Amino acid sequence: MYIGYIAAFLTTASFIPQAIKTIRTHDTEGISVLMYLGFVAGVFFWLIYGLMQRDVAIIAANFLTFLLALPILVIAAKNELRRRHTESPS
Amino acid sequence: MYIGYIAAFLTTASFIPQAIKTIRTHDTEGISVLMYLGFVAGVFFWLIYGLMQRDVAIIAANFLTFLLALPILVIAAKNELRRRHTESPS
Repeated sequence: MYIGYIAAFLTTASFIPQAIKTIRTHDTEGISVLMYLGFVAGVFFWLIYGLMQRDVAIIAANFLTFLLALPILVIAAKNELRRRHTESPS
Repeated sequence: MYIGYIAAFLTTASFIPQAIKTIRTHDTEGISVLMYLGFVAGVFFWLIYGLMQRDVAIIAANFLTFLLALPILVIAAKNELRRRHTESPS
């Protein structure tokens, strides 16, 4: 069903501008680290599910989403740890 | 397959901390409006796809994700418009 492909394209491609913005600026002010932790883990489980079902669309969409969301998680987590470290002595 | 349910739970529930953070603080500094525009549209198409396939899991997961991602999009878009409006006279 083509509607499914439009949906998969949009939810995957939507992470491109966020990944570019985060990699460029390293600004993760309003971003929830917990969201990206859960999201990246979820996408990883979708990838396993796709491999188990041998569903190429699920595998491709979630592999790409994983590649885009992982750097956002890493940068957001680093910023969060740095922020906590800076705040702790005061 | 239970792996699919874990995946769906994680990718949907991951938006709860982000929605809470954004609704509470209205801070969308590091957030890409374009990401949420594409993502909310994509989740909406997933919802239509689920309705067409009469797949309750796809409908439920995407309905909840839509409810969580929509306020983030609205707040981020408002902030972006306000920022552009403030910057334009200079």
